[in-house]
Amino acid sequence: MSQTVEPPRFSDKFQAELGDLFRWRRDVRRFRPDPVDAERLEHLIQTASLAPSVGYSQPWRFVVVQDPALRQKVRLNFEESNQAALSSYEGEQAQRYATLKLSGLDQAPVHLAVFCDCSTTTGHQLGRQTMPEMLEYSVVLACHTLWLAARACGIGVGWVSILDPKRLSLDLAVANEWKLVAYLCIGYPEEEHVDPELARYQWEQFQPAEVIVK
Amino acid sequence: MSQTVEPPRFSDKFQAELGDLFRWRRDVRRFRPDPVDAERLEHLIQTASLAPSVGYSQPWRFVVVQDPALRQKVRLNFEESNQAALSSYEGEQAQRYATLKLSGLDQAPVHLAVFCDCSTTTGHQLGRQTMPEMLEYSVVLACHTLWLAARACGIGVGWVSILDPKRLSLDLAVANEWKLVAYLCIGYPEEEHVDPELARYQWEQFQPAEVIVK
Repeated sequence: MSQTVEPPRFSDKFQAELGDLFRWRRDVRRFRPDPVDAERLEHLIQTASLAPSVGYSQPWRFVVVQDPALRQKVRLNFEESNQAALSSYEGEQAQRYATLKLSGLDQAPVHLAVFCDCSTTTGHQLGRQTMPEMLEYSVVLACHTLWLAARACGIGVGWVSILDPKRLSLDLAVANEWKLVAYLCIGYPEEEHVDPELARYQWEQFQPAEVIVK
Repeated sequence: MSQTVEPPRFSDKFQAELGDLFRWRRDVRRFRPDPVDAERLEHLIQTASLAPSVGYSQPWRFVVVQDPALRQKVRLNFEESNQAALSSYEGEQAQRYATLKLSGLDQAPVHLAVFCDCSTTTGHQLGRQTMPEMLEYSVVLACHTLWLAARACGIGVGWVSILDPKRLSLDLAVANEWKLVAYLCIGYPEEEHVDPELARYQWEQFQPAEVIVK
């Protein structure tokens, strides 16, 4: 097939818009209640599976969490993890942390847990022998692909990492060999910003990339 | 600033082209000798730094490897790691592995090592307490951002993971706290394909994403 399809040439306009997409991507924690169409979600997940993966191992596994009881367990997991994190800060920083909204678990119409199947034999270990972490990195690449595709069609994604991953895997009763890589909140954003929430609330500022030549 | 800038709306055409970008991204191992403009490379690295990062920690550190003696050390590292990997396969699979071209280290005009600064205090540990791996995941996201931006302007990227990462860090004499996340070969590709090299050479085939609803 690859012989007969002409490779695309991406215009300057597309490249500029791709820059806009990177600039406006954002980690979204404030969602409108509007549902995300099931077909749209399926399309985003299939798009994610176009991501690069080490040895073509495709180790991503997707779990859409709909059961209200399971969602409640995830929220509790977040709240306890967030409380523990809060208590590690002191003074003004603790106050600032307490004011940040760090997840959209309460509002997001879609909860998507993304796992790495560490037991997969797909790819036959190629590329993983000296850097076994490449397997979960591949799942990170899939999450980012989904994130960008979602933002391009007006859907926001928030990656929640303030969670006990082992507890979450137990709650969702997935295979022991599946490692949680991301818990994604997905839905239409309440508001859009070019600056990250953590910059807007003065938690941290942008730093130009450091480049060393050797 | 975010108050006065209108958020972009991405057209159906852009979304379709973004799908083409994901489909045609590819891990490139065959490069033309044409150099990559230094300004273009700098722009790609600064684009990478628009990636999401946990707690806005921006832990990516970029090392452009130009010194021929250092490049030779990296190639030797790859060759030895690749030989060890080859000897883990048997029979027909070993034969197939031996025919695969698994890096473009010999041809790529640009070698870019991307590290995670595990000692960074930027972001004040936010989001990393229960999932400390989020720090290196952030660097993976930056690599993917660079990869997509590069492909959009006709530049190919190949991620080499058949390397001993500790030896590579020692050879490049980077800080002990910097963990190698990716060694990227960058340049103009000799040929373009819609199917991954590993599928084309029948190492592994595409699998539709598995989606479970709970």
